[in-house]
Formats: sequence, C-alpha cells, structure tokens
Amino acid sequence: MSITRHESGPLLSLAVEHGDTVYLAGIVAKDLKKDVKGQTEEVLAEIDRLLAKAGSHKSKILQATIWVPDIRLRGAMNEVWTKWVDPKNLPGRACIEAKLADPAALVEIMVTASK
Amino acid sequence: MSITRHESGPLLSLAVEHGDTVYLAGIVAKDLKKDVKGQTEEVLAEIDRLLAKAGSHKSKILQATIWVPDIRLRGAMNEVWTKWVDPKNLPGRACIEAKLADPAALVEIMVTASK
Amino acid sequence: MSITRHESGPLLSLAVEHGDTVYLAGIVAKDLKKDVKGQTEEVLAEIDRLLAKAGSHKSKILQATIWVPDIRLRGAMNEVWTKWVDPKNLPGRACIEAKLADPAALVEIMVTASK
Repeated sequence: MSITRHESGPLLSLAVEHGDTVYLAGIVAKDLKKDVKGQTEEVLAEIDRLLAKAGSHKSKILQATIWVPDIRLRGAMNEVWTKWVDPKNLPGRACIEAKLADPAALVEIMVTASK
Repeated sequence: MSITRHESGPLLSLAVEHGDTVYLAGIVAKDLKKDVKGQTEEVLAEIDRLLAKAGSHKSKILQATIWVPDIRLRGAMNEVWTKWVDPKNLPGRACIEAKLADPAALVEIMVTASK
Repeated sequence: MSITRHESGPLLSLAVEHGDTVYLAGIVAKDLKKDVKGQTEEVLAEIDRLLAKAGSHKSKILQATIWVPDIRLRGAMNEVWTKWVDPKNLPGRACIEAKLADPAALVEIMVTASK
C-alpha cells in the first residue's frame, strides 16, 4: 500500500496517507494567545485543511484523541467541536488531560480518517 | 472502503467500522461509584459489546490505550485486564496516567481492532 | 485480513501485524538508570527491532504518540528522535506529558507503521 506524506518539518509530517487511511499529527493552534474556544477553532480549521490535502474530510474521521492541559477546558472545547463535526458522521473519540509542548497551548487534537 | 458508525451521541460514535478495522471511542464505566476493578470490568464488558456490534471480538484487538487518573491504579486494572484478554491474542498496549473527563472515572480504554 | 502477533507477554504483544499495517505497544527503555537521551535511544532501537520483525521499517511509520513524564524532557528526546527518523519519511506525531507505569521511565513511544 502506498504512503504519501504532506508538509513534513524536522520532526514530523502533518498528514500521512496510507492506502485508504489518513493519519494526522497532533495539531495545536498557531495563535496561542486565543482562549480555548479560539484555539479549538484554529485546530479544527487546520484539520479541515490537512484532511482536504490528503483526500479526506471531517465526515470521514474514524478516531480522534483530544488533549487539554486542564480537563475543565473540555466543556468549552466541546462547544466548538459540536458545531464543527458532521453530526451524521461522528468519530470515536477520547478527551483526556495532558500538559502540551507549549504551556500556552490549550488543546491538541490528533485524528485518523478514511479517504 | 465503507464506513459504518454505531451508537452516535452528540460528540462521538462509540464504534466505527472502516473496511476491516474497527475504531472504538474511549470507554469509561457507567457506574463511577465502583472501584477501579469494578470500573475496569464494566469498561471491558462494554468493549465486548461494541466489538460484537461492529463484527469484531476481543481476540482481534490490535492496539489499546489505557488511561488511569493515578498510575498506581494500574496494578488493580491489570488484574482485571489479564483475566479478560485472550492470552493467545494480546494487543499492543500503552497505559499512562491522565485526568479523565469525570473525576470519579478511574479508567478509560480506547481500542482499535480487526474484524 | 490476517493478524500476526509478536512477542506476547502476560499483558500485551509488542507488535501486531494486521494486513499491511503494524501496531506496536508503547515501548519504554529497559535500563531506566539512563537519562532521557539514553532511554530514547533504547526505545528507538527497540522500535527498529520490532518493526523489522513485523516486516516494517522506521521509514514507514505512519503515526507516533510520545509520552514524557515532564514535558521539559521533550527537547532532549527530540534531539535523539531527529537523528533517528528518516528525514524524507516523517510520521504524524503527538508528544504530550503523562506519568508512566515506572516512575523512572522518562519516555514511552507507541507507533503505527505500514509494512
């Protein structure tokens, strides 16, 4: 099965196609001065962009892992998530607390999707 | 490859079939008054139920991620895990500490399986 | 799709082949007296060994999850990671903080790869 990698930096690729499956990196917002809602919007927009580049779409997400540095941020993150997801095509999901690479990052999301 | 989603709520689907692979959501117990062993039993019974619904089985789990809010709970969780898994068909696995959405939840497990 | 499991202990298999995809367990170093760089070297050597056993290679990693018990260890881990990865074939990746099973373990890495 062929592998196609997109937007590779020194550490990772932001998206990897493997046959009919797409693996994204954990995505954080670029503007870390935003609150958790603003950061979640940025993360989900970036996931939209990367999925499109890899021939996928948010309606085809299979599994998502969401990390927030304080679990109490989950409610605000979920408000943005709920507006964004395709309500007829929801993925498996886990949301847990974890400190992220940048202390100002308030959410990181990593998804696996179908093409 | 076709996608089939099972038991979708507002945020997520509990199980997603993608071709020959099944992705579950992170599962927590419903009765959070139970201790970690009781909660692990509930989680694993729910995983059994969801895998069956998606045409899979615990003997076909490929990879599992287990989160406990205190890493010292790992031993008690493992006692229940060891009794439950098919000893001839063990998955890849990571068990790490993370605060979960509900502070009373003592274990959350997310698995990927084959059909 | 066939499943082949490698090096199964009481809790887990270190590598699981599923068709064209390989799932590893979360790998920690054996010598936990080493610093984070030494432990990362050990973990990555073990991932090399397991991927080879499952018919894969580091140039075919699709997605990696990296846990460090103190997020400030990320820089030192990344130095070893950057030397190890195939720069033309970088995976998706998330690196987050989490307490690990053994308090002396300074890094745990779980990867999914293509064959």
